[in-house]
Amino acid sequence: MAEAGDAQTDAAVDRLIGLMARLPGLGPRSARRAVLTLIRRREALLDPLSQALADVAATVRECDRCGNIATGELCAICANPARATGEICVVETVADLWAMERAGAFSGRYHVLGGVLSALDGVTPASLRIPELVARVADEATREVILALNATVDGQTTAHYISGELSPLGVRLTSLAKGVPIGGELDYLDDGTIGAALLARRAL
Amino acid sequence: MAEAGDAQTDAAVDRLIGLMARLPGLGPRSARRAVLTLIRRREALLDPLSQALADVAATVRECDRCGNIATGELCAICANPARATGEICVVETVADLWAMERAGAFSGRYHVLGGVLSALDGVTPASLRIPELVARVADEATREVILALNATVDGQTTAHYISGELSPLGVRLTSLAKGVPIGGELDYLDDGTIGAALLARRAL
Repeated sequence: MAEAGDAQTDAAVDRLIGLMARLPGLGPRSARRAVLTLIRRREALLDPLSQALADVAATVRECDRCGNIATGELCAICANPARATGEICVVETVADLWAMERAGAFSGRYHVLGGVLSALDGVTPASLRIPELVARVADEATREVILALNATVDGQTTAHYISGELSPLGVRLTSLAKGVPIGGELDYLDDGTIGAALLARRAL
Repeated sequence: MAEAGDAQTDAAVDRLIGLMARLPGLGPRSARRAVLTLIRRREALLDPLSQALADVAATVRECDRCGNIATGELCAICANPARATGEICVVETVADLWAMERAGAFSGRYHVLGGVLSALDGVTPASLRIPELVARVADEATREVILALNATVDGQTTAHYISGELSPLGVRLTSLAKGVPIGGELDYLDDGTIGAALLARRAL
């Protein structure tokens, strides 16, 4: 962090600014502001943040079953007996899992792929926990697999591949509906979304 | 952080998101993204950041002389024999000191006030390291004090107060020039800046 200053700060502060600047949403300037705020508010912010980071670094791992963030062998959702078994919602990332949970509309369990198939990036089915998904569907007496993948080309390619893998198992396969988002204005929607919403139109 | 999810993550992750969201420039959403990035990039980011924060929390303090960030009794600038003595640049905050250092135009030493006088916020001269400044000017055989305070009402009030305190000591008092910023377009400048630049006009 030559930009943060060579002479005027010491090495520990420079290293902290350099690492903070690599977080998404922060650049060199906002990393400097954040570090100054931390140093100014030592008891309220710096010490607790240091402790929280150390805790997370020491305890967080991947859930053995679904790939979500966990502190034990199973994540909080897989370990929760109140979550319905028999329904598995397949998502790309933990961020997508959190988005589904914020919506609060799903009470089953998840399977986090960890990405999508991509020939360009060399992402293969084995690196996406797809074999684990196939094994879970058989083991857990699953009635329905909901594919909640992003509506991108790679996401839909992955959904197509997964449906090919799972269809011999006789499980019900669904995916999130495509259409006009709540609050969406037709004038601002792309043609593909309008076309999909028209094809999937429903009787009033 | 109820928003980050109650059931789907564990307490350590929630606490980390909550603390990150209190940094300037980050909100709940970008804090979630940052924490997920940290967890995904454990060796490259999470562990080094945790270590850097612990280092800073353990070592960083205020320079005894100027109020800059330091790891020993004196900051890197005060301890540097190559920095000119006899010139003290007075700034409001450490962020302003860093901005001056990035400009690279000053080779003397600094005095960080830690804020500006404000009747509304109850900030008095004693809470601003102004007595320390007066003592330094006498002790260090200072030839010139440069007031590099922000061109705000509170900044200029503080500059006026400091000049009253220092004038009996017979030291040369200057402040940063006010005028058109480099690259500035007159059409976008406020009237006060244009007036100040006209008053301080210089012969070509």
